[in-house]
Amino acid sequence: MRAELTIDLDAIAENWRALDAQSTGWTETGAVVKADAYGLGAARVAPALARAGAKSFFVALAEEGAALREALGSRPEIYILGGYMPGDLEIVREHDLTPVLNSAEQVRGFAADAPGTGCAVQLDSGMNRLGIEGLELPALMLELNALRPKLVISHLACAEEPAHPLNAMQLGVFQTLALGFPGIRRSLAATGGILLGPAWHFELTRPGIGLYGGLPFNEARPVVGLSLPVIQIRDVAPGEIVGYGGSWTATRPSRIATLSAGYADGLIRAMGGRARVFAGDTPCPLAGRVSMDLLTVDVTDLDAVPERLEVLGPHQGIDALAEAAGTIGHEVLTALGSRYARVYKGGDN
Amino acid sequence: MRAELTIDLDAIAENWRALDAQSTGWTETGAVVKADAYGLGAARVAPALARAGAKSFFVALAEEGAALREALGSRPEIYILGGYMPGDLEIVREHDLTPVLNSAEQVRGFAADAPGTGCAVQLDSGMNRLGIEGLELPALMLELNALRPKLVISHLACAEEPAHPLNAMQLGVFQTLALGFPGIRRSLAATGGILLGPAWHFELTRPGIGLYGGLPFNEARPVVGLSLPVIQIRDVAPGEIVGYGGSWTATRPSRIATLSAGYADGLIRAMGGRARVFAGDTPCPLAGRVSMDLLTVDVTDLDAVPERLEVLGPHQGIDALAEAAGTIGHEVLTALGSRYARVYKGGDN
Repeated sequence: MRAELTIDLDAIAENWRALDAQSTGWTETGAVVKADAYGLGAARVAPALARAGAKSFFVALAEEGAALREALGSRPEIYILGGYMPGDLEIVREHDLTPVLNSAEQVRGFAADAPGTGCAVQLDSGMNRLGIEGLELPALMLELNALRPKLVISHLACAEEPAHPLNAMQLGVFQTLALGFPGIRRSLAATGGILLGPAWHFELTRPGIGLYGGLPFNEARPVVGLSLPVIQIRDVAPGEIVGYGGSWTATRPSRIATLSAGYADGLIRAMGGRARVFAGDTPCPLAGRVSMDLLTVDVTDLDAVPERLEVLGPHQGIDALAEAAGTIGHEVLTALGSRYARVYKGGDN
Repeated sequence: MRAELTIDLDAIAENWRALDAQSTGWTETGAVVKADAYGLGAARVAPALARAGAKSFFVALAEEGAALREALGSRPEIYILGGYMPGDLEIVREHDLTPVLNSAEQVRGFAADAPGTGCAVQLDSGMNRLGIEGLELPALMLELNALRPKLVISHLACAEEPAHPLNAMQLGVFQTLALGFPGIRRSLAATGGILLGPAWHFELTRPGIGLYGGLPFNEARPVVGLSLPVIQIRDVAPGEIVGYGGSWTATRPSRIATLSAGYADGLIRAMGGRARVFAGDTPCPLAGRVSMDLLTVDVTDLDAVPERLEVLGPHQGIDALAEAAGTIGHEVLTALGSRYARVYKGGDN
């Protein structure tokens, strides 16, 4: 019996529509489905988003783009955020992918190979991670204009903190640099940027985490549910330890349930001793460390132990679990392992 | 261009032989290949171990066992550590798997279904995670003897701390409980237990992490190498930030390399600001947070930035990287993502 991960495609579609509704009609809403749609399965998630109305999709690598093209058919635009790297020529051409050129080197490599597909350009507006710098642009404008990019993008470093001064600064830098690309569509906002307001939306937004039910999109509908089968229940006496390192010791007569999933399934080891799972409304704390394939849980306060306990669901979302693991919802999602039985709900199919 | 993960099958085989050599001739050395061989690919790793001499393999779930049977053919014994759960009948029968029964409930379920394959039994010797308790045994002995288990096992909670008193206590409990199973082979030791000495070895050992180059097997040959392509290099001025949240600020004129892999690839987010990658012998600290698909690295001190930087390899093993992420080598391995190009070395093929 495997642990079951449910993914609500209708909730993803509804989150897309809710984020789309934040913008005025002249802004298109795209969808970020990199990292296998944040671990939820791009082959199922992306078509559901396309049916909801998304026409522009973003992945990190050309290889992801090739798989996505299979799932989406020929019409949607597929942007490769990692850009154009040596060896990408064939895959980009064959699958009609649109690299987002991030550097002078990539611009020159793409122009030289001329794969015959379109391109986009990423400008760095202050995050200093990916994108062409303002200082480099003048020397590149001739080559860039010859490529006739479809889109100019940048990315915000602190969009999840609305009051952070970098948001306004990056907006100003991007607006200014984009003046060099008249008539070309612009995109700055991911989920956090959408929530900052219309000034950040430009012609195309690129929501990611908000589609999958995560902060900073407070009103997102939850998307994932994860329940783990109970393999075994045992009583332990005060003074007995549970799990690796003996890090948990019973301080009263206790009942311990052993569940079938562990850090190899993405239940991040740092949540040991800090996270909870749920039996109905009742939280049950983890007892001891997370093992590779197993969790041990203190179920002493339950009248009856159900067949499965809930890790993600109505009582605990990805952000609450992330907090227990000292991380963010994004990592909780992308860590979700391959051993779960994945069950898709909704999605018109 | 994808990041490249190399897996040295010869090193795995050599680690198996080195751990096998720790025991006398009457102890068989098995191999734990659960969680897809700790993230390294059971379909390639397990046959290499079989060629080295392993005949008994351990996985966590019946579904893993079914895939492993495909890879290994009919001869090796495949034990399912998670035991026998409702719904496992068909898969266990069809793929000739040997469940390790962990509880009275599993013993009764297996006896009732009688899948026609053999079984093993796990006894709890003090870890309180999986296994039948000593107190439960008398009431179960009739049923257990009728099943004629092939193997009786238990698991150590603190084997990585040789001086921990629980090691000797668990040894005593296991020896005593196993007296109830005369003539049946016994297994207590994983990698840590093997290193504790021959008293812990019994008739079968079950090394896992040591095969894959991790502690506590100090003398293990490293197994994995991971190098990430540099997508972009930029200069930043003092005062400029890098990455999400602006958590890293340049304090001198700096050069930043952006690499193509992030926490969606298992580069655990907690290593942000703490881990290093290597250019030849020179360590380069991460600059700022780990992104989902990207790392930013301070390469200011390099004369030239190579095409790839090394995350795992001769200069940094899984345990050193784990320390930077506040975890253990096991989690570094099992987190390794699916977007890497996996390259297998050796393994006689």
